[in-house]
Amino acid sequence: MPETPAPAAVGMAIEEVDTPALLIDLDAFERNLKRMADAIDGSGARLRPHSKTHKCPIVAQRQIEQGAVGVCCQKVGEAEAMVYGGVGDVLISNQIVGAPKLARLAALARQAKVAVCADDAGNVVDLDAAAGVAGVILDVLVEIDVGAARCGVEPGTPSVKLAQEIDRASNLRFAGLQAYQGRSQHIRAYSDRRAAAEAAIALTNETLAELAESGLKCDIIGGAGTGTYQFEAASGVYNELQAGSYIFMDVDYGKNENVDGAPFTDFENSLFVYATVMSRVTEDRAVLDAGLKALSVDAGLPRLWDVPGATFTGASDEHGKLEIDNTVAGGNRVLKLGDKVKVVPGHVDPTVNLHDWYVGIRNGRVECLWPITARGMLR
Amino acid sequence: MPETPAPAAVGMAIEEVDTPALLIDLDAFERNLKRMADAIDGSGARLRPHSKTHKCPIVAQRQIEQGAVGVCCQKVGEAEAMVYGGVGDVLISNQIVGAPKLARLAALARQAKVAVCADDAGNVVDLDAAAGVAGVILDVLVEIDVGAARCGVEPGTPSVKLAQEIDRASNLRFAGLQAYQGRSQHIRAYSDRRAAAEAAIALTNETLAELAESGLKCDIIGGAGTGTYQFEAASGVYNELQAGSYIFMDVDYGKNENVDGAPFTDFENSLFVYATVMSRVTEDRAVLDAGLKALSVDAGLPRLWDVPGATFTGASDEHGKLEIDNTVAGGNRVLKLGDKVKVVPGHVDPTVNLHDWYVGIRNGRVECLWPITARGMLR
Repeated sequence: MPETPAPAAVGMAIEEVDTPALLIDLDAFERNLKRMADAIDGSGARLRPHSKTHKCPIVAQRQIEQGAVGVCCQKVGEAEAMVYGGVGDVLISNQIVGAPKLARLAALARQAKVAVCADDAGNVVDLDAAAGVAGVILDVLVEIDVGAARCGVEPGTPSVKLAQEIDRASNLRFAGLQAYQGRSQHIRAYSDRRAAAEAAIALTNETLAELAESGLKCDIIGGAGTGTYQFEAASGVYNELQAGSYIFMDVDYGKNENVDGAPFTDFENSLFVYATVMSRVTEDRAVLDAGLKALSVDAGLPRLWDVPGATFTGASDEHGKLEIDNTVAGGNRVLKLGDKVKVVPGHVDPTVNLHDWYVGIRNGRVECLWPITARGMLR
Repeated sequence: MPETPAPAAVGMAIEEVDTPALLIDLDAFERNLKRMADAIDGSGARLRPHSKTHKCPIVAQRQIEQGAVGVCCQKVGEAEAMVYGGVGDVLISNQIVGAPKLARLAALARQAKVAVCADDAGNVVDLDAAAGVAGVILDVLVEIDVGAARCGVEPGTPSVKLAQEIDRASNLRFAGLQAYQGRSQHIRAYSDRRAAAEAAIALTNETLAELAESGLKCDIIGGAGTGTYQFEAASGVYNELQAGSYIFMDVDYGKNENVDGAPFTDFENSLFVYATVMSRVTEDRAVLDAGLKALSVDAGLPRLWDVPGATFTGASDEHGKLEIDNTVAGGNRVLKLGDKVKVVPGHVDPTVNLHDWYVGIRNGRVECLWPITARGMLR
């Protein structure tokens, strides 16, 4: 259990939850789980959702109940938290570098199905050595750069060469391709987003053909996020989808557009930071008790949920500043001191990582408290 | 102790520290402590440094050893962590709203010298009631808005009125003025920063005069940050300085200027995020294992420490992207896979809040591991 006390008790009315707190609207969350399962049903692609979004094995179990094959992780510590929380199949969709982490990674592969990505021949040597010490055969995917210009070798020949090195290593098994295009997820216009996804799909497909020529088979061809999952699902190329944010959504994903410029409504907001008005001195300003340490602003400011006339205009360490338009809602004062409001995070993943507890809400009451056990698992 | 394992063991060489980790250069940190103590010595103002920067009672004790009278906190949970860590005198330089927090605040005042701020008459009634239930007399300061347009009543008559309400409450004691000008701290030009501080000082002085006319005395006249401490120290008006970042510094404060446009060198960088090069596929790019969950970017990007030719150009959830100029340092490849580098945080306070441990370094070895016990104490 986390060190910080929980902000609520099961059975409380939502208004009694202490703030700042991270709320899950359980009905909306469950609808999102089902919508994703329905959307990809029959596509031939399975879901391996990213646990970097929620950092909570309880959420992972709910995803697995809806058909997910396991989860993705970014860190060994995150993978440990998932495995120790009962998840039996984890893919670290990232490079793991350095002896202490490699030893933990290999040890974890004795306890669960574990795969990891590589984009460097020297790292493959190190992975092989660590797997040998632990006495395991480790699954390794080649990460290819399909447009994000971050990690990953070039598609095509360089990736085949690295796959062959993995294949030759005594304690490793070549398990497939990691082909995530992070940049495409937040391209607002549908057609542009689709074009970026299609380009990544094409590069992945070409690489698969080259691998097949070399006699190398991919169990996993993984990628996709909440912004592009439908394209990879329909591609016939990818067989695993790594979306994470779909369960909760955020302001940033809310700015994406669907076909014809319609709002992106595939999923709904189910995650909120609950905050209290802690200062209300002037008519046009209210200050919340949630700032940079409760809400990440890296992808833009959070947005108030269902408070007409109030706009979140700035965050400092422990304060969120609201501008109040008193002409809205009949010119009444919109908020008073002590009022509690829901705030939609600007960017869900780093916001979740600021909290130790989810407070699950249904029908206005606290149904559950879920510890965010991989919070802060940086290593 | 935090839930996450420590990234190091005492006695290790720095190169063995696992990453991402938060390093303190102990020599530089101790020089900063002494520089602040020396700088304000004889000014008549005492130091009450802000613990929202470090969130660690061990750091607070080091500040108190150098003459600090206690600490500031922003949250009741932060104050609890400080008191339970041996700090006997805390000022919550913030408003505390809502029954559960008020009960904890009043209970804490039975265990240590505790003061809090108010900017609302209804909140004063609630503070009085909570203090009554706990059987304590609670010290309450009036926060005045001296230019930050965040919390605080207007200086002058409105603040005197609120001070009188505190003075009349059976279980409260009017303890002074909170007059922090947050906006002025990061004004780059010395003369503009000084002007903003002087304006705040003048408003505070006028309010003090009005309070004196009403027969109300201020024990504490508090404010100032790392950007303006010298002006408040010299003012003859403020008697407590609330600087926090001076112990560690960050990229943002590093952009401030001293007189004549000279760099702000009152304090030196003593805090770093230690990170590993986890991907090095192209000549002009390296990727670190520290992104948004290890380094806050709300006030601008972090900066590499002592890696010529490498620039931190972007952060995603778990990755920090570096651009490498290979013409620097003789055209050699500047960084290789597995290399560890120091990164100066863009903004120190929210960066510290992402970590559970300080790794104290002296002469290239780990001297101490300090738990960041108020990390995540949002409530």
